[in-house]
Amino acid sequence: MSVFFYGCVTLDGYLADKRHRLDWLHQTGTAEETGYQDFYSRMDITLMGRRTFREIEGLGDPAEIYPATQNLVFTHRPLSCPGFRAVCGDPAELVRGIPREKNVWIIGGNTILAPLLEADLVDGMTIQIAPVLLGEGIPLFTQGEGCIRFRLAGVKQYGQFAELCYERAAPAAL
Amino acid sequence: MSVFFYGCVTLDGYLADKRHRLDWLHQTGTAEETGYQDFYSRMDITLMGRRTFREIEGLGDPAEIYPATQNLVFTHRPLSCPGFRAVCGDPAELVRGIPREKNVWIIGGNTILAPLLEADLVDGMTIQIAPVLLGEGIPLFTQGEGCIRFRLAGVKQYGQFAELCYERAAPAAL
Repeated sequence: MSVFFYGCVTLDGYLADKRHRLDWLHQTGTAEETGYQDFYSRMDITLMGRRTFREIEGLGDPAEIYPATQNLVFTHRPLSCPGFRAVCGDPAELVRGIPREKNVWIIGGNTILAPLLEADLVDGMTIQIAPVLLGEGIPLFTQGEGCIRFRLAGVKQYGQFAELCYERAAPAAL
Repeated sequence: MSVFFYGCVTLDGYLADKRHRLDWLHQTGTAEETGYQDFYSRMDITLMGRRTFREIEGLGDPAEIYPATQNLVFTHRPLSCPGFRAVCGDPAELVRGIPREKNVWIIGGNTILAPLLEADLVDGMTIQIAPVLLGEGIPLFTQGEGCIRFRLAGVKQYGQFAELCYERAAPAAL
């Protein structure tokens, strides 16, 4: 499998404010201008935390928002939403069990990204940076200490978002 | 006066590792490819913390590294370096006392940037993001909670650095 992060953060690195809200994001503009559809069309499986799933539920029918992927939610509670399945345990172990040909998108939840970074299982990251500082919130990166190097594949500007695209660094560059 | 931040951070927002070292930066490439000379030529005054000054001392003669600016170091200890002057107190108060026509560069020290952001005294930020995660270190942004919005003026790629250029947001966009 190949594993990707794709999502928005503030300039100070927060996925959401400390109440898990995205007001700063909605005030910055829409994602329609970005390469999202192209990215999503290449994904087979999504991974998210329970709080991210709840946020998605708040936006409308989750099955309509992620219609083409198998969607896995890390939660200990039962889920009754078509197209979404509750999973639990170690994200790295789960990801290692996914077939080679599948593309996996880590939608949200730093508790999922961190163990995958630590296990060197992240192949690419596309990060849209909003021109906003929050000062407090839910950070994107919470992995433990250790130098992890990626390769900058490109930068783009979409409205007020700076999009940075990273690929796995070649072994020689590590 | 107009106040600017210009400098490098890791993708997870650190100015330096937790021992205040910049190994990750030196391993990424040099700053020679960037618009640094153009930026520096427009500055009149630099502001830095004591630790940043020490790092600069480690690189060579500080007066040669920042020859064209008046360089102010926040420290309670005496300094004996031509072109550098020890200052102390509240960075916001100091900056408010600088003449209107002067351009001020916050070189380093999140303890200087944070109070200036909180006082709405930062006019621009040019941030080079290195494709590196450290997990721990000295964060660039340590200002208190509160939504501060900038305007994304442009993005560039210099080698493996993504450079994001921000300007003060117009009042209507706040």
